[in-house]
Amino acid sequence: MAAEKGHRRRRPIITLITDFGEGYYVAAMKGVILDICQDACIVDITHDIRSHDVLEGAFTLLCTYPYFPPKSVHVAVVDPGVGSERRGIIVATDDHYFVGPDNGVFSFVFNREQVRKVISIESQLYQRGTVSPTFHGRDVFSPVAAWLALGTQLEKFGQEIEDYAGATVLPVQKVEENRLEGMVIHVDKFGNIITSISRDNASQLLGNEGTPKFFLNGHEITHHYSFYAEASPGEVFTLLGSSGYYEIAAHKKRAADILGVERGEKVQLELVTE
Amino acid sequence: MAAEKGHRRRRPIITLITDFGEGYYVAAMKGVILDICQDACIVDITHDIRSHDVLEGAFTLLCTYPYFPPKSVHVAVVDPGVGSERRGIIVATDDHYFVGPDNGVFSFVFNREQVRKVISIESQLYQRGTVSPTFHGRDVFSPVAAWLALGTQLEKFGQEIEDYAGATVLPVQKVEENRLEGMVIHVDKFGNIITSISRDNASQLLGNEGTPKFFLNGHEITHHYSFYAEASPGEVFTLLGSSGYYEIAAHKKRAADILGVERGEKVQLELVTE
Amino acid sequence: MAAEKGHRRRRPIITLITDFGEGYYVAAMKGVILDICQDACIVDITHDIRSHDVLEGAFTLLCTYPYFPPKSVHVAVVDPGVGSERRGIIVATDDHYFVGPDNGVFSFVFNREQVRKVISIESQLYQRGTVSPTFHGRDVFSPVAAWLALGTQLEKFGQEIEDYAGATVLPVQKVEENRLEGMVIHVDKFGNIITSISRDNASQLLGNEGTPKFFLNGHEITHHYSFYAEASPGEVFTLLGSSGYYEIAAHKKRAADILGVERGEKVQLELVTE
Repeated sequence: MAAEKGHRRRRPIITLITDFGEGYYVAAMKGVILDICQDACIVDITHDIRSHDVLEGAFTLLCTYPYFPPKSVHVAVVDPGVGSERRGIIVATDDHYFVGPDNGVFSFVFNREQVRKVISIESQLYQRGTVSPTFHGRDVFSPVAAWLALGTQLEKFGQEIEDYAGATVLPVQKVEENRLEGMVIHVDKFGNIITSISRDNASQLLGNEGTPKFFLNGHEITHHYSFYAEASPGEVFTLLGSSGYYEIAAHKKRAADILGVERGEKVQLELVTE
Repeated sequence: MAAEKGHRRRRPIITLITDFGEGYYVAAMKGVILDICQDACIVDITHDIRSHDVLEGAFTLLCTYPYFPPKSVHVAVVDPGVGSERRGIIVATDDHYFVGPDNGVFSFVFNREQVRKVISIESQLYQRGTVSPTFHGRDVFSPVAAWLALGTQLEKFGQEIEDYAGATVLPVQKVEENRLEGMVIHVDKFGNIITSISRDNASQLLGNEGTPKFFLNGHEITHHYSFYAEASPGEVFTLLGSSGYYEIAAHKKRAADILGVERGEKVQLELVTE
Repeated sequence: MAAEKGHRRRRPIITLITDFGEGYYVAAMKGVILDICQDACIVDITHDIRSHDVLEGAFTLLCTYPYFPPKSVHVAVVDPGVGSERRGIIVATDDHYFVGPDNGVFSFVFNREQVRKVISIESQLYQRGTVSPTFHGRDVFSPVAAWLALGTQLEKFGQEIEDYAGATVLPVQKVEENRLEGMVIHVDKFGNIITSISRDNASQLLGNEGTPKFFLNGHEITHHYSFYAEASPGEVFTLLGSSGYYEIAAHKKRAADILGVERGEKVQLELVTE
């Protein structure tokens, strides 16, 4: 059993979020990773982030990285500025590593985690020999993630920096004494409407009294349930979703279609006291 | 070689079928699984089951689990009743484990396999600390699958039950002396129309004499080939598909479009004797 | 450390390209592979090749296999002739193995790589017991790939052949003294238009003097940048893409939509000298 204790490392996990869509770009990234770190367990989070939508990438990362084991490496490439002067960075928190462009895609992570170090990716030793100015996902971020997963020390990749794109919160603001305004941050495959308003937001900004009432696209939603099947078929209601954000749903129907709502729409929450 | 024999376990395989679509729900499940069972080989069967379509999930499972090695754990989460009183179950057959809601998604398995034991998932030890009432895929079924893949004994998860949703066969019935009625159970990416009628069905219910003639949406299909390229381009014909079900196809064309057929459509088979 | 050196083999990698779409066909292939080669690292390149489009499969393979480690096994199943007399083959180059139908899907590989041996798949030992005439992906190519990944000698699978579908180049021809004609070989998720014309083509056939000007669908594109963010938002321009082919793009917009172009469209390149 000594061997087990002494030599057994955790299997390196590398997760991928991109806006590349399905196809050969992502496959090339995986080839590069496996060529360096053959034991890597590569997990696709999604490659269907809307093209260039850094906010959607950041939100998807926020909803997924916490479930992965310590020392996982999370690569997030939503990178409209690829090839320009924008830097590539590695973010080390107590439990995770993050690799991607310094364009805000890690801003929600900065807001939630204790950041241990942010490194600007500079050393060419850990990049591919020729770096395409249009595909740092393959030529910079994938090899860096693979070397990181192999245990390469942070300092080897480049200098520590402090002036990276900082922490931001999901878009939520208090617009009236008892009213918050947020946005529709995601519409899932079921047509459930996920808002940027979390229960924590609501209680910090509005307190805990009153019953929640949601307003979006001219509709008022007052019924609140804790799971989908509690509602009657087709009934629109609110729910505290599995990632901690309020969502608007309809039992076995697409709430987004019923209410005519897309990602980006404004949504308001009021706590109504009698 | 003793080491090989003595210590080498098969690599744990966990397959996933859901109606969650592509995105962060599935990724969270994978994170949870890998956090418990770091060696798991996770295989996505599909996440594009139509929302809430338990029958489609059950059919997809039927067409895939037999190809996986013994002791694979198959997770099937098509679960409109999540959060309600419907139970979560583990099904153990001689060769496989199945994990998911007790809502019929395993009914075709019950019909084909010798069931060794069905366990109601009760122990909270093998679930996440906080269970969201809307996401048992992540908080119940994923950790249970991971612990099962690690070799946890069935009895630890809960009590054996007998009153689970039982065996069903694919929808096929004899409607006339020499005629069966089934349904279109799937339309694949090529536009091939997969029916619920298997060769076994046909021979059990109609015997083996006569030539098969199919009827659907006002069309009669009489040509029968054994592979696609046997037909002329565009010709519509029937075929015994690779999963054992009759299908209606068109060489290099989409039969579903030509015949105007979608999943759910009724289909009849007659064995015509001169 | 002797154990490391002596026994450690590279982890077997098997990549998959098919036109099967998402769903249970691909999953069955993976089950078959894992049942034979439990340590296989299976990488999906894509399953969204247009149905029966051998050229698209061949191009996708060309853009991905070079990034994978030596000894990877690349399975490419775009196979409209499945079940007919067309052969299945294994191609061995110095660094890679390729498995699939002998229908041209490896023609670009033949053009780029030194081919060591091409084997006609004959032995039924390495196929599934029953081979469906419509699904060689599952019953022939997957088990062959798995046995190959396990180290089975080439000769065991069948005879060496010389009369396989040979090398071809991507469709590019010189149509005037200083003008090439190629085609749109791919439109990616961003709407970038990837052409079949590489920089190597252009310099071999037209020389290196002059500035490149592209013509397609009645449009002339003269601006050339090296990365996307160099252009003004919406500006259409050309770029040397990350796979070595010229592409036509628009910063943060879909060039394919702006120019009304789909895969297959003709495209011309002229080198203009003053």
